[in-house]
Amino acid sequence: MASTLETLVATACKIRDDSCAKVQPPLPELPDPLPLNVRGIADQVLTPAEIAITTTEPLDLIEKLAKGEYTAVEVTKAYLRRAALAQKLLNCLTELLWDQAIERAEALDKIFAETGKPIGPFHGLPISAKEHISIKGLRCNAAFVAWVNDVAEEDAHIVETMQNMGGIIFCRSTQPQTIMHIESDTVIYGTTYNSYNTNLTAGGSTGGEGALLGFNATPLGLGTDIGGSIRVPAAFNGRYGLRPTAQRVPFRGLKMPMAGADSIFGTIGPLSQSRRMLAYFMKHVIGSEPWHSENGLLPVPWRENVLKPGKLKIAVLWSDEVVKPAPPIYRAMNIVVEALKKGVPGYDIELVPWKAMRQDYAWDLTSALYFTDGGEEEVETMASVGEEILPLTKWIMTENPAVKKHDIHSLWKLHCERDAYRGEYNKYWQSSGAEDGHPVDAILCPVAIGPACLHGTARYWAYTAQWNLIDSPGVVFPVTSVDVELDKKEEGYTPVNEQDKFFYDLYEPEKYRDAPINLQLVGRRFYDDKLLEILKVVENALGRDS
Amino acid sequence: MASTLETLVATACKIRDDSCAKVQPPLPELPDPLPLNVRGIADQVLTPAEIAITTTEPLDLIEKLAKGEYTAVEVTKAYLRRAALAQKLLNCLTELLWDQAIERAEALDKIFAETGKPIGPFHGLPISAKEHISIKGLRCNAAFVAWVNDVAEEDAHIVETMQNMGGIIFCRSTQPQTIMHIESDTVIYGTTYNSYNTNLTAGGSTGGEGALLGFNATPLGLGTDIGGSIRVPAAFNGRYGLRPTAQRVPFRGLKMPMAGADSIFGTIGPLSQSRRMLAYFMKHVIGSEPWHSENGLLPVPWRENVLKPGKLKIAVLWSDEVVKPAPPIYRAMNIVVEALKKGVPGYDIELVPWKAMRQDYAWDLTSALYFTDGGEEEVETMASVGEEILPLTKWIMTENPAVKKHDIHSLWKLHCERDAYRGEYNKYWQSSGAEDGHPVDAILCPVAIGPACLHGTARYWAYTAQWNLIDSPGVVFPVTSVDVELDKKEEGYTPVNEQDKFFYDLYEPEKYRDAPINLQLVGRRFYDDKLLEILKVVENALGRDS
Repeated sequence: MASTLETLVATACKIRDDSCAKVQPPLPELPDPLPLNVRGIADQVLTPAEIAITTTEPLDLIEKLAKGEYTAVEVTKAYLRRAALAQKLLNCLTELLWDQAIERAEALDKIFAETGKPIGPFHGLPISAKEHISIKGLRCNAAFVAWVNDVAEEDAHIVETMQNMGGIIFCRSTQPQTIMHIESDTVIYGTTYNSYNTNLTAGGSTGGEGALLGFNATPLGLGTDIGGSIRVPAAFNGRYGLRPTAQRVPFRGLKMPMAGADSIFGTIGPLSQSRRMLAYFMKHVIGSEPWHSENGLLPVPWRENVLKPGKLKIAVLWSDEVVKPAPPIYRAMNIVVEALKKGVPGYDIELVPWKAMRQDYAWDLTSALYFTDGGEEEVETMASVGEEILPLTKWIMTENPAVKKHDIHSLWKLHCERDAYRGEYNKYWQSSGAEDGHPVDAILCPVAIGPACLHGTARYWAYTAQWNLIDSPGVVFPVTSVDVELDKKEEGYTPVNEQDKFFYDLYEPEKYRDAPINLQLVGRRFYDDKLLEILKVVENALGRDS
Repeated sequence: MASTLETLVATACKIRDDSCAKVQPPLPELPDPLPLNVRGIADQVLTPAEIAITTTEPLDLIEKLAKGEYTAVEVTKAYLRRAALAQKLLNCLTELLWDQAIERAEALDKIFAETGKPIGPFHGLPISAKEHISIKGLRCNAAFVAWVNDVAEEDAHIVETMQNMGGIIFCRSTQPQTIMHIESDTVIYGTTYNSYNTNLTAGGSTGGEGALLGFNATPLGLGTDIGGSIRVPAAFNGRYGLRPTAQRVPFRGLKMPMAGADSIFGTIGPLSQSRRMLAYFMKHVIGSEPWHSENGLLPVPWRENVLKPGKLKIAVLWSDEVVKPAPPIYRAMNIVVEALKKGVPGYDIELVPWKAMRQDYAWDLTSALYFTDGGEEEVETMASVGEEILPLTKWIMTENPAVKKHDIHSLWKLHCERDAYRGEYNKYWQSSGAEDGHPVDAILCPVAIGPACLHGTARYWAYTAQWNLIDSPGVVFPVTSVDVELDKKEEGYTPVNEQDKFFYDLYEPEKYRDAPINLQLVGRRFYDDKLLEILKVVENALGRDS
């Protein structure tokens, strides 16, 4: 057993290492020891041209590619090298697609040279993807050792979609065991680090994308989210990430455990360097009408200018009353609230208080919905090759008192509870418009209980999972970063429960030095378009172009 | 036990009978014996004014109400009396809402008198509803004896929606045991008859609505469909019925067994006297944006003029190759095909052949998805009061080899099979556009294996359930009726399996004398709007205004 396990792990790591070894010119030796904040190393290792490309805002990059100011090959090579460097520093890749990406870039450049036109809205843009998004002919393990040798027979629909629009998939990134931690740690590849502070996690489950993005080693990442897995890593690395409403973005071709379990839906979504790139992604992906070729998708069109000037009602949720967010989160909330109070031309912004609705119950319900077989199938898959069950897997699954193996009747009962909660939440939301006929447009809230977690401590996701439960779209955006002076521990606070105590005891600002602080904006189901327009207003309030 | 059962049945029947006894002026004694075709009796019993109202096409009726040419009270009384007569002849009601409907009509007339305007697009229109659609304060049994005394705490969302738009719910109608037969027969109320030939079923599960509609005793019925339950009764009574794509029409507030089971979705939809009424219903119901107050609904807007002039590709499915339709169905198919071949101005109609995709497998899959607990919960509910399990319940549920009690893992596997089949079907559909980039717009096919079934023989629904499995909208429309001379039994045919033999042996045209023959048109998921526009073209081809 052990030897099978070791062989499989070695196979996966060799694929990764061989793929990274293709980088030309090769990367130099790195300084030893490395600082906790490794961000400056890019400037020492990469060429000025590579740095210029990889720090260009992605939509500007697309524009330059479309004008022929950059070739797809030079852009792709710059990102390939930066991603390989990220791998050395952050352990965030499972495979670098050096040959394939360059070959594809060359083909695109050839077409461009011949026609003078981009082939689509993502012409020449390198795009990274979480490992469990299948790529035809490549192995896809979905973080299970037992699946290390499984080869994908087809491209995932999102891969096909992005490629059809001119995108170049250039690397694949890490995710945690079971794809159900908000830290990315596996028996196969180990732990992924945060470039701002390697004592901290890059988040999960789309953690490799988060690390790449934070290190400017990808302009656009494809992630998946069923409880915060796009938003948390985007936030922990100070970038943008959208969990769209489920069943909108192409989903076919994800390698996943628990196939056929549909008590709660996951979704694919974008992580990027800017809000406008998220909107651009959604506009074009949905504009491609992917529902024709994927029956499970809903033909809800993407709209523009949904948000009308005038009243804009934003609810503010400071705490879910189960785990109180750490001081930097409150400071970030204050920054945004104060900015919104100053107003934005054209909008009459009204801020209203918002309460979590039985968050402890909602979290238990959500985690029960995740693993309706009590985690049995995943445990068996791991056991089949002697894969160790990692602590965060135990926490969310095997030792979670809310998780149990259901029979059909208890499953139906659970669905009724889910539907009742959703209905109740919807009523609450609708009631916010009782007086003026204008329900809350979006909710401003934390993404997590604090900055990127210390490794192994990411034991609370309810600030994001809440919105998966009610299937509301959520977007995260950077606000500030930890300031050791301003973000002192709140003295004299008495935690209200064990989880609250765990995080209160853990917090010391020094531990989180340099960590980015993001916040989350949540919209109504299927109003992803409007949500991103509201974020634009919020960013305008913060003095950003957005 | 028996006495509980008898008491409960008596309670339900007394509610019905007392409600019908309110009719003023009272209905006269009926002829004895009654003919098999009871349609002529309306002319003997009702006043000319009542007949004029109840034979006015529903949209014309709405127009007359909106202009004040009819009052809501006179229209409502006419339909109340005709529905009460239908009950005497066809056993199709569970409750006549005499007092409530008239009170509501009076209130609407008062508003109209004051404002000169209708309150909404259904102002004053009487609307009937299948019994399991809840009405606040009224008992709702969903065809279970055990639930006879259950009182609904709230109006179903569709009831609220229709009332907000000016509709008047005026009666409630029968459905079968478990709501899962395509004949409407219960231990509570007995069997519902077809007005064209009382030896035949009015269909199910929305059988009461079908009977009312066929007898012109409702201008608009609200039904539900998870396997054909709107389309079959509309078809068996020669009228129009639409099973919309699921999760579009308000669904909250249905009384149902197996709450929380969501392996396959049911939906509410309209049955009416004309195609344009179906479109009007959908346009206004979806236009009311019901998704704001019902979280489970999808905000896919209703569009008009989706169908563009030019190529219109219609697939023709003559038989599913499991049970061959009876001769009048073939004749009806031929009528429509020949009409389409003659063409419709503005359209370049292309007819292409279509094959069923493993219909036997699909039907087994569908019936497995209906009862993932093997029917246990329903059997227990019936057993709790000693309710007899009727033969058609045994056929679909307890004695159906495809139905079994699943555990979580076998349920997931079943979902994977469902999703794979859907994906495969979608590919097949898409492939119909491989050569010209124009996949099939709609499929023309039978609704059932023959005309309305003889009582107790409705043991095949795959011609409708197929489209529930892939969640395609389906609409049925009248084409012809059984002609004893033209629709002779096909001599020398060798049935290909037991089911095929059952129906072949059963068929003799004389048994189905006067029975209407409808066909079905099926569209792509969420293209309900386009489907109804295609039906307009088909009806134009048949020389109808539509």
